[in-house]
Amino acid sequence: MKAWERVEEGKRQGRGKRKGRDRVDWMEVDEVVCLPRLPRVAVCGGTHGNELSGVYLVRELLKAEKKVMEKEEEEPLSVLMVLSNPRAMQQCRRYVDTDLNRCFTHAKLNGPIPDNAPYEIIRSRELNATLGPKGNPEAVDLVCDLHNTTANMGLCFIAYSDCDWICLHIFRHLQRQMPDVPMRYIHFDVSNKESYSLDSVGKHGFAMEIGPQPHGVVRSNIYTAMKVGVQHMLDWVRIFNSGTIFEGGCVDVFTMIKHIDYPRDNETRNITAAIHPKVQDRDFCLLHPEDPLFQTFSGETLRYKGNEPLYPFFINECAYYEKGIALSLARKRRVTIPAIRVQTEQQQRANEQEFASEEEE
Amino acid sequence: MKAWERVEEGKRQGRGKRKGRDRVDWMEVDEVVCLPRLPRVAVCGGTHGNELSGVYLVRELLKAEKKVMEKEEEEPLSVLMVLSNPRAMQQCRRYVDTDLNRCFTHAKLNGPIPDNAPYEIIRSRELNATLGPKGNPEAVDLVCDLHNTTANMGLCFIAYSDCDWICLHIFRHLQRQMPDVPMRYIHFDVSNKESYSLDSVGKHGFAMEIGPQPHGVVRSNIYTAMKVGVQHMLDWVRIFNSGTIFEGGCVDVFTMIKHIDYPRDNETRNITAAIHPKVQDRDFCLLHPEDPLFQTFSGETLRYKGNEPLYPFFINECAYYEKGIALSLARKRRVTIPAIRVQTEQQQRANEQEFASEEEE
Repeated sequence: MKAWERVEEGKRQGRGKRKGRDRVDWMEVDEVVCLPRLPRVAVCGGTHGNELSGVYLVRELLKAEKKVMEKEEEEPLSVLMVLSNPRAMQQCRRYVDTDLNRCFTHAKLNGPIPDNAPYEIIRSRELNATLGPKGNPEAVDLVCDLHNTTANMGLCFIAYSDCDWICLHIFRHLQRQMPDVPMRYIHFDVSNKESYSLDSVGKHGFAMEIGPQPHGVVRSNIYTAMKVGVQHMLDWVRIFNSGTIFEGGCVDVFTMIKHIDYPRDNETRNITAAIHPKVQDRDFCLLHPEDPLFQTFSGETLRYKGNEPLYPFFINECAYYEKGIALSLARKRRVTIPAIRVQTEQQQRANEQEFASEEEE
Repeated sequence: MKAWERVEEGKRQGRGKRKGRDRVDWMEVDEVVCLPRLPRVAVCGGTHGNELSGVYLVRELLKAEKKVMEKEEEEPLSVLMVLSNPRAMQQCRRYVDTDLNRCFTHAKLNGPIPDNAPYEIIRSRELNATLGPKGNPEAVDLVCDLHNTTANMGLCFIAYSDCDWICLHIFRHLQRQMPDVPMRYIHFDVSNKESYSLDSVGKHGFAMEIGPQPHGVVRSNIYTAMKVGVQHMLDWVRIFNSGTIFEGGCVDVFTMIKHIDYPRDNETRNITAAIHPKVQDRDFCLLHPEDPLFQTFSGETLRYKGNEPLYPFFINECAYYEKGIALSLARKRRVTIPAIRVQTEQQQRANEQEFASEEEE
């Protein structure tokens, strides 16, 4: 029974990778996986200070929240709005000292903190204290971190797991609710310990990456897609918490295989070519061996020398020039996701006891 | 005789505005205006360090020049390639301390220089010494300064004169040679003394502004358009210097009328709206009173409240958020340009004598 096996595999992986996350209980009736309630969600913007959709969206949500609080309306879901890197936002730069969204590994969060530590190292610990601690039962249930890219990627979820049913179900919900927005699920196959981005601090988490938009610019179409995406994400969590069963199905997952750098001058390290016009803006269009890949500044075409066709993404992302990434390549595969629903209170209590006894071991 | 009047007007304006420039001589035969030879041209990139087409194009031209020099080939035209703001380029930022391309007014170039002067103030004087001095007969004949914009502006010439026949003829040449590239001539009606940009240092000058391209990114289509544009510009100068007569004709000139800022929060000065999706990317499409102009972050449409239809440009240019410009508006009119040719040596000598005696007065 294939679906069953898939779910079991997911269950094992979920436990292995993120302790306290994806703690699935196999329901024999109707094959519905029961997962813990998601009472606390964080929506973060400005993790990169020049990715403006998230900055302005979180500011707008904070205003709306203030109005709701003034009316003393009750919200059964706790939504925490976070502006992650205020200093970088103020300077409209990606970061001040170092890339904040690479600071959330276990090692960086827990290592000794030097005098004159980079601003973002200090800020990452503040955020870990607020939203985490990472890997801890007290961490928020879901972190949605808002990003923009100069690449023509549409709306992407970027996550470290290909079997986090919560993230995958939210993704499928958005796909259905926003049929006009090209949408993909990207999987970075990195262990929870080595995962480095802000969204890794929550029990579940993903980056919502939308483009194309130049950094330092806000385009209303991109802003609106993000706003609608976040609304649907929060709606889904509320519906999930209310006990609704979500049907199983399939999601195409793009697993990152490798990065390719620009051709560079050996001495100066300056780039000597741009993305080829036939590849520019063609994120998620299959790239075959020997396809044009770069065009040198003197006009020569350089070809893709890989062995297998792969899907390019983050093509010509501004912030990745300094990281030595001209584009990333992914393999696509279809992942079967089970039907899910929230655990009953009884299940949740049993689960917590199991977790506690595991901790004691 | 309309064409005659137009030329005469141009002649007067040219003299009044830029001493030593546009020194036209009315040829009664065939109405051909004779203009001084253009032996020295400067092509500048990296005046804004994150506008990468110009940075990589000038680097490429410098390499090509080196190869030519190694072959000891003779080039009758002296083309000076300049990387204007190396420090900003190194940091991939628009500028380090202050916008270099606002430093070339007479006042800033000639005022006292304070201790701890901003880097760009010092650099502007170096450039003025190399390419100018501004307003001086020793200045290079033509400065072409290469820029990028995040706005969907195609290829634009931006100049301070609507009667600089050299710039207008070069523009028309590029229009004809590159029919697939949308091309416009923008006129900032500012006196030579108050003109602030690097291109104002030459006897003739214009910015070649190409977009859309995110700052910090190089797109091969934009790079290629700039490369081809510069080649055609240099070709034109060589042909002009060789004595060829260029026919008169017409050019549509967009004269900048005013800038419009984003709606902003009174307290924080943060913007509260983005360019409306119906206006975004519609540079040079006529904007009528009551047309949608902005969309607030809460979803409201704000309309254009001007009295007359005008042409928007620099719509949502990244670098202008800090300058308080969401878009600029222009009036379009058709300018008749005369036939031109290079002065004979005799004419040039007579002209130089006239100039010298004017100086003595």
